[in-house]
Amino acid sequence: MPTINTFGVIGGDERMRYLAASIAADGYPVCVHGFENLGPCRGAAETTLSELAKKSSVILLPLPATRDGLTLNAPYAAAEIRLDDAFASLFCNRTVYGGMIQRLVASSVLWREIEPEDYYRREELAVGNAIPTAEGAVSIAIQEYPGTLNGAKCLITGFGRIGKNLAIILRGMGARVYAAARKKEDLMRMRAFGVEPLTYREITQRFDVIFNTVPARVIGAPALTQQDADTLLVELASAPGGIDLESAGRLGLHVVQAQSLPGRVAPKTAAEYIKEAVYNMLEEA
Amino acid sequence: MPTINTFGVIGGDERMRYLAASIAADGYPVCVHGFENLGPCRGAAETTLSELAKKSSVILLPLPATRDGLTLNAPYAAAEIRLDDAFASLFCNRTVYGGMIQRLVASSVLWREIEPEDYYRREELAVGNAIPTAEGAVSIAIQEYPGTLNGAKCLITGFGRIGKNLAIILRGMGARVYAAARKKEDLMRMRAFGVEPLTYREITQRFDVIFNTVPARVIGAPALTQQDADTLLVELASAPGGIDLESAGRLGLHVVQAQSLPGRVAPKTAAEYIKEAVYNMLEEA
Amino acid sequence: MPTINTFGVIGGDERMRYLAASIAADGYPVCVHGFENLGPCRGAAETTLSELAKKSSVILLPLPATRDGLTLNAPYAAAEIRLDDAFASLFCNRTVYGGMIQRLVASSVLWREIEPEDYYRREELAVGNAIPTAEGAVSIAIQEYPGTLNGAKCLITGFGRIGKNLAIILRGMGARVYAAARKKEDLMRMRAFGVEPLTYREITQRFDVIFNTVPARVIGAPALTQQDADTLLVELASAPGGIDLESAGRLGLHVVQAQSLPGRVAPKTAAEYIKEAVYNMLEEA
Amino acid sequence: MPTINTFGVIGGDERMRYLAASIAADGYPVCVHGFENLGPCRGAAETTLSELAKKSSVILLPLPATRDGLTLNAPYAAAEIRLDDAFASLFCNRTVYGGMIQRLVASSVLWREIEPEDYYRREELAVGNAIPTAEGAVSIAIQEYPGTLNGAKCLITGFGRIGKNLAIILRGMGARVYAAARKKEDLMRMRAFGVEPLTYREITQRFDVIFNTVPARVIGAPALTQQDADTLLVELASAPGGIDLESAGRLGLHVVQAQSLPGRVAPKTAAEYIKEAVYNMLEEA
Repeated sequence: MPTINTFGVIGGDERMRYLAASIAADGYPVCVHGFENLGPCRGAAETTLSELAKKSSVILLPLPATRDGLTLNAPYAAAEIRLDDAFASLFCNRTVYGGMIQRLVASSVLWREIEPEDYYRREELAVGNAIPTAEGAVSIAIQEYPGTLNGAKCLITGFGRIGKNLAIILRGMGARVYAAARKKEDLMRMRAFGVEPLTYREITQRFDVIFNTVPARVIGAPALTQQDADTLLVELASAPGGIDLESAGRLGLHVVQAQSLPGRVAPKTAAEYIKEAVYNMLEEA
Repeated sequence: MPTINTFGVIGGDERMRYLAASIAADGYPVCVHGFENLGPCRGAAETTLSELAKKSSVILLPLPATRDGLTLNAPYAAAEIRLDDAFASLFCNRTVYGGMIQRLVASSVLWREIEPEDYYRREELAVGNAIPTAEGAVSIAIQEYPGTLNGAKCLITGFGRIGKNLAIILRGMGARVYAAARKKEDLMRMRAFGVEPLTYREITQRFDVIFNTVPARVIGAPALTQQDADTLLVELASAPGGIDLESAGRLGLHVVQAQSLPGRVAPKTAAEYIKEAVYNMLEEA
Repeated sequence: MPTINTFGVIGGDERMRYLAASIAADGYPVCVHGFENLGPCRGAAETTLSELAKKSSVILLPLPATRDGLTLNAPYAAAEIRLDDAFASLFCNRTVYGGMIQRLVASSVLWREIEPEDYYRREELAVGNAIPTAEGAVSIAIQEYPGTLNGAKCLITGFGRIGKNLAIILRGMGARVYAAARKKEDLMRMRAFGVEPLTYREITQRFDVIFNTVPARVIGAPALTQQDADTLLVELASAPGGIDLESAGRLGLHVVQAQSLPGRVAPKTAAEYIKEAVYNMLEEA
Repeated sequence: MPTINTFGVIGGDERMRYLAASIAADGYPVCVHGFENLGPCRGAAETTLSELAKKSSVILLPLPATRDGLTLNAPYAAAEIRLDDAFASLFCNRTVYGGMIQRLVASSVLWREIEPEDYYRREELAVGNAIPTAEGAVSIAIQEYPGTLNGAKCLITGFGRIGKNLAIILRGMGARVYAAARKKEDLMRMRAFGVEPLTYREITQRFDVIFNTVPARVIGAPALTQQDADTLLVELASAPGGIDLESAGRLGLHVVQAQSLPGRVAPKTAAEYIKEAVYNMLEEA
């Protein structure tokens, strides 16, 4: 980073507050706005929006930047922050980073000029977020499944970032871990993790816990009919997910929706990952 | 087991219901009483107390058998079950097993003759229960600590059954694990688990999460003053525990009481452990 | 596989004999040639080359197919098998698979027509081979490093297939594992494995064991001068490898060359991986 | 330790040389004798026996102290060191520690007065030595078993110190691990390690690798007849061990004798364990 930037952090949840505090702890000046109802933020100055925009060379917007396309995602702000030309105009000639920014960008033509970048697209952030996601999923399974995970027969569908992390943790707990994937090399890859490989067609047995990480219908009626009332299904993929909810409902199966875990179970670490992604983007800019 | 026993299971929580169902699934006749408000129990016959006593050669009482010394521990029973001579007299000439039975035995002189045995004293049950205890503790830490356990600096005090299991799971999650113990050989033992050994006097640094398993004041003011608001303290030892709560309170530290985890997070598996202990006791009788 | 193939396995080492036996155990007819000095092969018929070629629809050549470009790689054959037009002509209209076949293909124009395929290029085989490679490397380190790997400070350079497997095994042994890579997402990926990430520039400390998996000079003089006589360096990358041998020699460091481990430490499993790759190729053909 | 001791280290193998060097590195004066053919020892002064005895307040003898009862175990000494009254008389009024000292003590009546203590009896040393023993056993299995340990069906007999360490390492490598023991609580204990429990009577299946840690015949003909030529048997218990060698020989099974591994595969770490035991003994004296 060539010059010492002042960072302006606006809105978001506890994660963004940890982000502001962590950047401040690195020695950068930090302004924050939009955490009024969450209490003070260590090391950062609370300012008005316009003051923040004036002082900051790097602006950090929340993840997601907006939920409704009309207001900034700022649940702890004293007043809602409308997304309009006035808001966007504050950030001309600023370096702006936000998470999932498509709808933000659509909220004003000015954004085209500002060219905000999406930290959520960074591979290192996705890799990082898979860690709290796996931890959160395991925590849910410990709480919701009536037996121990130790000795439990667990299935992971998909063997990407989250699937691999789940495999590592579950094996460490003494679970019997199976995983299903499509690609031949992923089936081979599972072995190094001590995981029993299955193709999707081979999901024809009962499991104690099933973790789905695939955003495509991979757990359909044939697999679901093998399960019973004690089986726990944890849906980690974003909607519509990979579990056939209608069939699961008809069969009386227990499905837990478990999305957006990083911000919920580990806001402090999730903030560190965002910070690293932002630092990397600044370095590469 | 020489003859086919009929098992009578009385009172207790979900765990005892799983116990009854699991014994029934092994092919034994099972009578149950005291789960009226918990719904039916697969494979077992609901009977009156006297009918159960008449039919059953082996009687299984809950864990703990009683909480107040006056009534059986039967939170899901339609009516309370008083511990008096009438109750005790039902079980003359029966093999009776219960968990933590000291106060039960004191409730009637008849128990002296009946000679009930305490399955909770079985080493294999204690070893088993350490598994759901460790899982439950980890789940609490995932939920309550604001960062991931991956990369977190965790301290385990005591390196007995629960401590070892915690070490295995936390290491598998990529935590940096320290443990404190008194005995030299325990300090050496930690290394095989990839754990950094500390004596109690060496707890002079900040940790992200501290799990106490020792039922003696090992986390006093000197150790507590090193911690901060983000540190999570999980008390696993039975009261009064090993964490100086007064100092922790004064310092504003976050302590979670986490006792009796097996029945809460894994009633199904906890029931299996009790069943194995009971079968072993019958075999050795 | 549409029709029942007869497999002809020619030459190679113990691994190819295990391959022939394993295919035979799956119920396929198998002919072998070129293991004369290795003893009989369970379930397979020893034949002449021409008989083998006549009977077999699928021909499996060794890995590598040839070492000198002139003869087939068949160290256990009674007589050398020359690579010429006569040899190639045996396999017209056959499905031919071999490992590292560039020089084989150059040995006769007929190969252009036969179009043999290289099973060594299959991703699932590369993924599989990383398992015995990591095991072999760990075995070398146990034998050659004068301390235990438990507690040892180990560095892995490169975090591809082999690097990840090494990390899994070494962590399971209680080593303190560091890894170096270039890509930001690989540095993040290491965390889920409980591995401390380093950039190549950060290799400025002493390690007990260094495993190199990168086929490019990543362990140069600056890193080597930090090491001492007890440090063990294990070179896993193919020549010229990633360790600056000249500097290492000048500094009196202990470097072990450890290539081609799958065939050496686990010929039976290495054969299984080749078999799976071949079956997959037949399925996709 | 109240006063600064001078340590005298006499004889033994590489391990004792590492021991002397490590004590010297802690800042203590160290005299050595009996490594003449092993080269110089960092930080320690080579002296005659009588000079060493004169200067040193703490004398460290090798492990075992003697092999034949007549001479000190000093394979690298320029001349043999006879165990007689003259030798013993050197150490009157010294604190003497040795390993497995029964036969040493029998070599002169003077030892009764000197009262040497046996560091090999320290529990922390036994616990420590189980680490290099497990690593060495795994290394042998990687080298000798023709497949990978990943995916291999491994049996550990005995679930004491070495058995548990083997379980940890093998599980980390993705092996399918079974263990056999007699005690009910050990069978339960295995589960936390992700290990499948068996009683000795249940060893009725084929395994890829069998590690015996029990110094009593637990692998007899019935278990051995289930194995085949690919099965590897690793005998870790001291003679006569737990594997019926006669039956194994008759069946043509592959048995590797693997005793005394700590000094062979990890002399440096084994020396650290001895040092810690000695320091602990001095502290407690």
